[in-house]
Amino acid sequence: MSDVASVLIDLFLIFLAAKGAGEVFERLGQPPVIGELLAGVLIGPHALGLLGTPRPGLIAAFHGDPASAAEALRLVYHVVAELGVIVLLFSVGLETRVSDLLRVGPRALLVGVLGIALPFALGLGFMVLQPTQQLTDAFTATALVATSVGITARVMRDLGVLGTVEARIILGAAVIDDILAMLLLAVVVALSGGGAASPWGLALLLGQAIGFVAFVTLVGTRVVGRYSVHFERLRIENAPFALALLITLGLATLSGVIGLAAIIGAFLAGMVLAEAREQYQLEHQTRPLVQFLVPFFFVVTGAEVDLGVFTDPAVVALAGGLTFLAIVGKFAGGTIGAWGGGAPDRRLRSAAVVGVGMVPRGEVGLIIAGIGRSRGVIPDDIFSAIVIMSIATTLAAPPLLKWLYRSWPGTLTAETARA
Amino acid sequence: MSDVASVLIDLFLIFLAAKGAGEVFERLGQPPVIGELLAGVLIGPHALGLLGTPRPGLIAAFHGDPASAAEALRLVYHVVAELGVIVLLFSVGLETRVSDLLRVGPRALLVGVLGIALPFALGLGFMVLQPTQQLTDAFTATALVATSVGITARVMRDLGVLGTVEARIILGAAVIDDILAMLLLAVVVALSGGGAASPWGLALLLGQAIGFVAFVTLVGTRVVGRYSVHFERLRIENAPFALALLITLGLATLSGVIGLAAIIGAFLAGMVLAEAREQYQLEHQTRPLVQFLVPFFFVVTGAEVDLGVFTDPAVVALAGGLTFLAIVGKFAGGTIGAWGGGAPDRRLRSAAVVGVGMVPRGEVGLIIAGIGRSRGVIPDDIFSAIVIMSIATTLAAPPLLKWLYRSWPGTLTAETARA
Repeated sequence: MSDVASVLIDLFLIFLAAKGAGEVFERLGQPPVIGELLAGVLIGPHALGLLGTPRPGLIAAFHGDPASAAEALRLVYHVVAELGVIVLLFSVGLETRVSDLLRVGPRALLVGVLGIALPFALGLGFMVLQPTQQLTDAFTATALVATSVGITARVMRDLGVLGTVEARIILGAAVIDDILAMLLLAVVVALSGGGAASPWGLALLLGQAIGFVAFVTLVGTRVVGRYSVHFERLRIENAPFALALLITLGLATLSGVIGLAAIIGAFLAGMVLAEAREQYQLEHQTRPLVQFLVPFFFVVTGAEVDLGVFTDPAVVALAGGLTFLAIVGKFAGGTIGAWGGGAPDRRLRSAAVVGVGMVPRGEVGLIIAGIGRSRGVIPDDIFSAIVIMSIATTLAAPPLLKWLYRSWPGTLTAETARA
Repeated sequence: MSDVASVLIDLFLIFLAAKGAGEVFERLGQPPVIGELLAGVLIGPHALGLLGTPRPGLIAAFHGDPASAAEALRLVYHVVAELGVIVLLFSVGLETRVSDLLRVGPRALLVGVLGIALPFALGLGFMVLQPTQQLTDAFTATALVATSVGITARVMRDLGVLGTVEARIILGAAVIDDILAMLLLAVVVALSGGGAASPWGLALLLGQAIGFVAFVTLVGTRVVGRYSVHFERLRIENAPFALALLITLGLATLSGVIGLAAIIGAFLAGMVLAEAREQYQLEHQTRPLVQFLVPFFFVVTGAEVDLGVFTDPAVVALAGGLTFLAIVGKFAGGTIGAWGGGAPDRRLRSAAVVGVGMVPRGEVGLIIAGIGRSRGVIPDDIFSAIVIMSIATTLAAPPLLKWLYRSWPGTLTAETARA
């Protein structure tokens, strides 16, 4: 069996677990995305171990070195997962109009800023009380800040409420949130490198990120609105869709190169192409890609979780504290920032939806914690606590969001409520 | 930049090169698949070198070991490419009815058997004249036998002639071809391991392969024809398509596990699902996946080619001989086997289409040669010659096929001829 054939087994298992768990959770009336995440935990290397162990054919390709083969396998999982979350955020962007987003701009900015500042302040305050180094405290607080909007976007898509004002505030805030989190990460990484974070370097990073988002949003939208009529002049099969995929991969890559999350570029690509004449057709054609690739993201994210860390009471206590502050900080930031955004009679629920929608940390918290660990700044017990925080915030949001939308009469049609 | 973000750059470059070259070749009136293959040669590690070199972020993930990082990068390319060719053969299978294939059964069997026997005999005769070991001769002849049906399927799909009797003979023969090539490979691998190939082991392999194909085709078709009406009872979003993808990945994986090419399983999955009530809907939803994933297969296949081997006259002579025999053997096998399949007035062209359609060796020849090289049986110069044979047969077939179909009046509507 070749190395590729051996990896194919894993991809099949991931897809089977995702669809099986999705079906069970649909029948239980729960969001299928939770099923996919838990399926990942279950078949992942820390539980059943069906994933993560390279088979003989793969180890042979690495001259008998199982560690390199395992690392390569992890890379394959994460690349396919990344394609999935890129496609997901592209499809979410396709349902988002720039004009709608600009209308919620000031509120989204406030949600983004408060949603970073409050969890960071609370996390730092909590960590200073622990017997840890200052640098560890700063890194841990940073791991609490970044929202992973993929989970919320998926739940809102499943509920059919991506068109609501709350969804637009959350998506706008996620862009700002990502820029600020990236800056904070740049500061702590610079500090952990022994040097001080240069104000010029940070200003450059900030300028790049804001420039990228502003340029793509403002110029891209106009260009697409004006020239999409010429897409059909290309000769390749189904040119508009091919071009849309090219723009999505391109902006996602560029976004990754300048240090933002690739999904921000994918979201912007979708938003820009929402202005194209072919918007409906693109949305329609993106659906099969979403169905095929997105489950890989959620199962692979779930597979990172090691439930074994729950056996150490000290870790559980630390994790409990961090999780509590991560939820309270983000929820407060979102709720305060979004206050007054909905209709007067459901102001509270509208703000609560934004607050809850910003809570999931997903893979972003894990990535920051991983960087800290690889630099020797975050010890294993704190890493495990951050992992628990990430998964707990991620698992908590979908049922809460669903409950908020379900118990909020008049906003959902019978059709979307069933989804 | 993370390791995943660094790989994303490569995937973007592959997609950009594929779509750009596809557009140029469409405008030149040539099959876009050739553009994609040549784009792969151009940006591959042996020419411009845009692919194949791991970036710093990726090397860091492999503890600074560039060789392992490069191997991991190669694995990612090949896994994404494999998903592409699986989706391609699934979509081809969806347009194939089992009853149509059984009707061409005896002819396809003859094409498959002769298409293996003639190139092997010619290749072995030629190699015996060279100053090489017997085992090298046998391995080289084996590398000449296996057709890579992906290229032909793509060209016929682009020409809109997948429904013709020639396409069905080629697809049926490809299944038989793959089973026989696998057996031949098993024999030479056993011989190169020092032992004799046990007749029992070979009988087991053959039984497994035939059993798999027969079981999936006969039982699967009935089950799908009878139970596809119940697909809708599943609760997951768009259940029929999800189930179709699951069956495709499952059969492709199983096919790989028992030693056949994964694409045989994918083709069978498509053929079985062609009996489902939702066949039209499935075909429609598979198209975006084809557009997104298939280009990776052709660019990655092209990137394997090292044009540098052309500088050695001895290699060129050897390659010329092998290529000539590979084309003549396969063409003769296909033409003789298919003789009498078409309408009387175009018997010759019909047989010629099958003959040409079986010629491309694509990645299968490269895989066999790679196995021989890793076992020390195939020296570098012969390996290079086999690489040239693979690419030459692959590049020769699409324009010839197109010419045969274009100069064959009355079989193409204006619509499909334009494609």
